[in-house]
Amino acid sequence: MTQKQLFDQIQLKKSFLCLGLDPDLEKIPSHLVSSSEEPLFDFCKTIVDNVQHLCVAVKINTAFFEAYGVKGYQSLERLIRYIKSHYPALFAIADAKRGDIGNTSLRYAKAFYEALPFDAITIAPYMGKDSVEPFLSYEDKYAILLALTSNAGANDFQSPNDGALYKSVLSTSKTWKHAERLMYVVGATKATYLQTIRTLIPDSFLLVPGVGAQGGSLEEVFNYGANDQVGLLVNSSRGILYASNNEDYAEAAVQAASVLQQQMEKLLR
Amino acid sequence: MTQKQLFDQIQLKKSFLCLGLDPDLEKIPSHLVSSSEEPLFDFCKTIVDNVQHLCVAVKINTAFFEAYGVKGYQSLERLIRYIKSHYPALFAIADAKRGDIGNTSLRYAKAFYEALPFDAITIAPYMGKDSVEPFLSYEDKYAILLALTSNAGANDFQSPNDGALYKSVLSTSKTWKHAERLMYVVGATKATYLQTIRTLIPDSFLLVPGVGAQGGSLEEVFNYGANDQVGLLVNSSRGILYASNNEDYAEAAVQAASVLQQQMEKLLR
Repeated sequence: MTQKQLFDQIQLKKSFLCLGLDPDLEKIPSHLVSSSEEPLFDFCKTIVDNVQHLCVAVKINTAFFEAYGVKGYQSLERLIRYIKSHYPALFAIADAKRGDIGNTSLRYAKAFYEALPFDAITIAPYMGKDSVEPFLSYEDKYAILLALTSNAGANDFQSPNDGALYKSVLSTSKTWKHAERLMYVVGATKATYLQTIRTLIPDSFLLVPGVGAQGGSLEEVFNYGANDQVGLLVNSSRGILYASNNEDYAEAAVQAASVLQQQMEKLLR
Repeated sequence: MTQKQLFDQIQLKKSFLCLGLDPDLEKIPSHLVSSSEEPLFDFCKTIVDNVQHLCVAVKINTAFFEAYGVKGYQSLERLIRYIKSHYPALFAIADAKRGDIGNTSLRYAKAFYEALPFDAITIAPYMGKDSVEPFLSYEDKYAILLALTSNAGANDFQSPNDGALYKSVLSTSKTWKHAERLMYVVGATKATYLQTIRTLIPDSFLLVPGVGAQGGSLEEVFNYGANDQVGLLVNSSRGILYASNNEDYAEAAVQAASVLQQQMEKLLR
């Protein structure tokens, strides 16, 4: 999928919403957990089927599947294949936070771009250039580098002393081969940083978690972070997935996603 | 597994060798790839069965299994279950480089400490304290933080300006809850850094890749890095796994591992 196609979808759907799939058996409606043989898949499938017209991207959190071993991994593979075959225009992100020495990163790229047909994967940049470039060698696939995350621990290494590290990640990674296939994670709880960030990477798409449950403001994110191709994928996971834990969970998810989509439509005008 | 038990094994086996399992179908003996239904498992099982008496730890590189989707993941699960049921005294490391916000890291801990019975997992520290602490909440399980890696990209963020970042990772992580369950990755190609590193973390075990294929010296690593409990797990992967790509690959692996074990025995005297 090209960035142009992603931008087209944003204009078509009047939305830059990314639906985060973090399926938690303790929060999924109990009737589904007890009646389904594959509750992780069935729950996510229902949410995607109902919400796909309101979002341009889906982000699958691989940890929530890996926690169940092979059975979980089977649901992960089935889910991404279902999504890309039924909704090919959805930009599918593996939220997997991988990254290792070159020949290992090449295997992770194979895992998430070939064995599982994702369009993009999130990457921790700690090991530098040769740990990231293998993910940039696939045409129309994207590596989404952690820059400034939305959790408390972001202050430990990313942004103490005026953020030397996250700024270094942004400016250094721009020089890597096929840097045009890089996107970046910037937490919505750090919206005011987006101004500085946009001076360093004016053109890249940003994946923005932390709106809603974590307290970030959608309007601030848009005002500080949007570029002329919008350049934002704002993620919501729990706010949509667990809008209700009863039999009306799909309707409640649509309702929660609609609220966000309508706010986005206003901002896009 | 406790650190005391690991130290006991080192004394018993006169070895601090970690066998790295990075099974690559293009390097595995071709007769095995063509005849086996599960070559990743069969190859690694044979190597472990033959080499286990010469090493105290095994490190499974998860990427090499994930590259094959569900089928690869099945081999990974089968392999770690086989190793821990047949050789429970081997310290089993998932070289998985995970790390995410707290509730996600908790799922990864469940994946690698429960669904798969590993003793330890490698973690990228970029997201800070709350991304690591979930891995420290399990008794006798260990999080092995990337500090200073052996690849070229380590110079991008970890160690420019006299290594501000890797030093910060070492000193900051020491203050985290259950920091006694932390170990650290320090590449053998950076052996002279080990002196400084030992002033910051005198007691922690270090996982040291990069001896052999990547050019690090075992003697330097020992001289600069050993503490009174040895405190080192020196990894060798390719040098053992691919010592031969013919039918004698198991014997050649034993031979290569023996050379390392004998060097270690001398250093331990």
